[in-house]
Amino acid sequence: METLLLNKEEVSSLIDLDAIRAAVEEGYRSFNSGLVVQPKIMDVALPGTHEGVDFKGGLDMGSGYITLKASSGGYDNNPKLGLPTGMNTVMLFEAKTCALKCVMDGTFITGCRTAAAGAISVKYLARADAEKLCVLGAGSQARRQLEAMMRVRKLTEVRAWDALPEFLDKYVKEMSIETGLNIRKCRTAEEAVRGADIVVTTTRGRSGPIVKKEWIQPGTHIAAIGADASDKQELDADVFAGAKVVCDSINLCVERGETHNAVKAGIIRPEDIHAEIGEIILGRKPGRENSDEVTIFDTVGMAIQDIVTAAMLYKGALEKGIGTRYEFFK
Amino acid sequence: METLLLNKEEVSSLIDLDAIRAAVEEGYRSFNSGLVVQPKIMDVALPGTHEGVDFKGGLDMGSGYITLKASSGGYDNNPKLGLPTGMNTVMLFEAKTCALKCVMDGTFITGCRTAAAGAISVKYLARADAEKLCVLGAGSQARRQLEAMMRVRKLTEVRAWDALPEFLDKYVKEMSIETGLNIRKCRTAEEAVRGADIVVTTTRGRSGPIVKKEWIQPGTHIAAIGADASDKQELDADVFAGAKVVCDSINLCVERGETHNAVKAGIIRPEDIHAEIGEIILGRKPGRENSDEVTIFDTVGMAIQDIVTAAMLYKGALEKGIGTRYEFFK
Repeated sequence: METLLLNKEEVSSLIDLDAIRAAVEEGYRSFNSGLVVQPKIMDVALPGTHEGVDFKGGLDMGSGYITLKASSGGYDNNPKLGLPTGMNTVMLFEAKTCALKCVMDGTFITGCRTAAAGAISVKYLARADAEKLCVLGAGSQARRQLEAMMRVRKLTEVRAWDALPEFLDKYVKEMSIETGLNIRKCRTAEEAVRGADIVVTTTRGRSGPIVKKEWIQPGTHIAAIGADASDKQELDADVFAGAKVVCDSINLCVERGETHNAVKAGIIRPEDIHAEIGEIILGRKPGRENSDEVTIFDTVGMAIQDIVTAAMLYKGALEKGIGTRYEFFK
Repeated sequence: METLLLNKEEVSSLIDLDAIRAAVEEGYRSFNSGLVVQPKIMDVALPGTHEGVDFKGGLDMGSGYITLKASSGGYDNNPKLGLPTGMNTVMLFEAKTCALKCVMDGTFITGCRTAAAGAISVKYLARADAEKLCVLGAGSQARRQLEAMMRVRKLTEVRAWDALPEFLDKYVKEMSIETGLNIRKCRTAEEAVRGADIVVTTTRGRSGPIVKKEWIQPGTHIAAIGADASDKQELDADVFAGAKVVCDSINLCVERGETHNAVKAGIIRPEDIHAEIGEIILGRKPGRENSDEVTIFDTVGMAIQDIVTAAMLYKGALEKGIGTRYEFFK
């Protein structure tokens, strides 16, 4: 019984954002069809430090795979040792036999499947004629979101902002070349948000909310990406007032997504949340219903996204003959 | 950053039961010194079937390693497909950097670290002159326990019993040759237990209790290995009455070990449990205090045993230049 090994470079060569978006969309369908098992994250951390490994596991009866994603965070020691602070590895099991089919570097999986989530929300919730995108934050997720969103809407203008000017400069320069789009460097978040049709928030969310309600024009779609823990926030809580709120998982978002902040502040109740994105994809609930409503998509991230992405990469590798075959059970 | 890969054959060549026993003893010390983080097992199973993967994770500040053991159970489909029903894989991370140092076949780890637990209990709890061992069950764990226990006591007689005669025949024949010991085939559990100094129970524990109190002579040590789930039982609950009970983890054993049955039956209360084995190893509590008391060691199994065993195998492989080096993060 062979296991396929895929390193970072090989995984990178297999990345296809359209295919990942399609896979994640299928994954959301599975989730809202009751085909997904996703236990709580297992957190193995050194007490009193940020050092540790998180294990996220899940099973998708739709694709027929189980994954375990190990996310290592060596925040305190690694920079001194010249090692990356975050390292991800994914084990992929065939659900039918529980055999370990693949172990792959997971560096790109989280970024790409999160970008896919943002793009799917744009596909189903942004206005069809949305063309002005505001990207808040200028890290790797800000890159992935732009790359993914430009594939689902014809963008004519991109506004970029980050609290760190050197980060912003680099982003604008590099992403202009990569995408061929007109990317405008904004001095304030307000300048970036006002007049945008789509707003995507990708900051670390640790310095308090960035986006104010009065900056948002009617008909805007907001993809709230950065806040995936109960101590993170990127939107003022009242941005949720009167908006159509869609979550990847209502339970997770109420517990620790951007939605958590709005619920805690009493701006919305969990029962005011319009839908989970999979319900919209399945056609069970409407997406955008007019050109004036403000829509918010909140994502914390789910194992199902890792499963479908890893399964797609694995199948792509088999097809193209990429990777190293190894026999653990010999 | 390289990861070492070890297959089943390589792991097998590195197995040294004395070294594993020493490592597990060190692991129990860590556990009772507050150096171990062991979250609950993450169970990813197909609803309504036995198919799935269990993930057991933990961190040991004593050895400085983190492991994740994936235990696959493809019970329904695999026999038909000619695949093993159970497959184990272990990821070993260095705690300091959270870097993935090794991925190894885990087929032997669970068996050997469980045998080590039994042998450690014999070392600390059986009479120094204990020489007659009774082994109930004739599967692979019955083999490992005999191999491990003969290293801590000078055995003059081994009595073996299993409900399936063909299993028992095979065990007696093969283990007589392997160990050079006089192994007596017993027709009943009673015949095997009466007069034994050490009793080790290694059956599946699904057919109700096997061992009766009146068969146990004063001064016997019982290692209760097989019952590691709340629906398993190998000892009549009243075997616990008046015995000195030692657990690997009191919490786990009260929840789902052999001890669970005795507590449920009202024979003992959790506060009657004498100690955790690590407390005895650390010298904080006495082990056996006279030659008449009956001692019971109950083990459910803990991640710490996997961590120290995997770390030992990894270090042994590095020393001997065994294994395949692979770069996931290239």
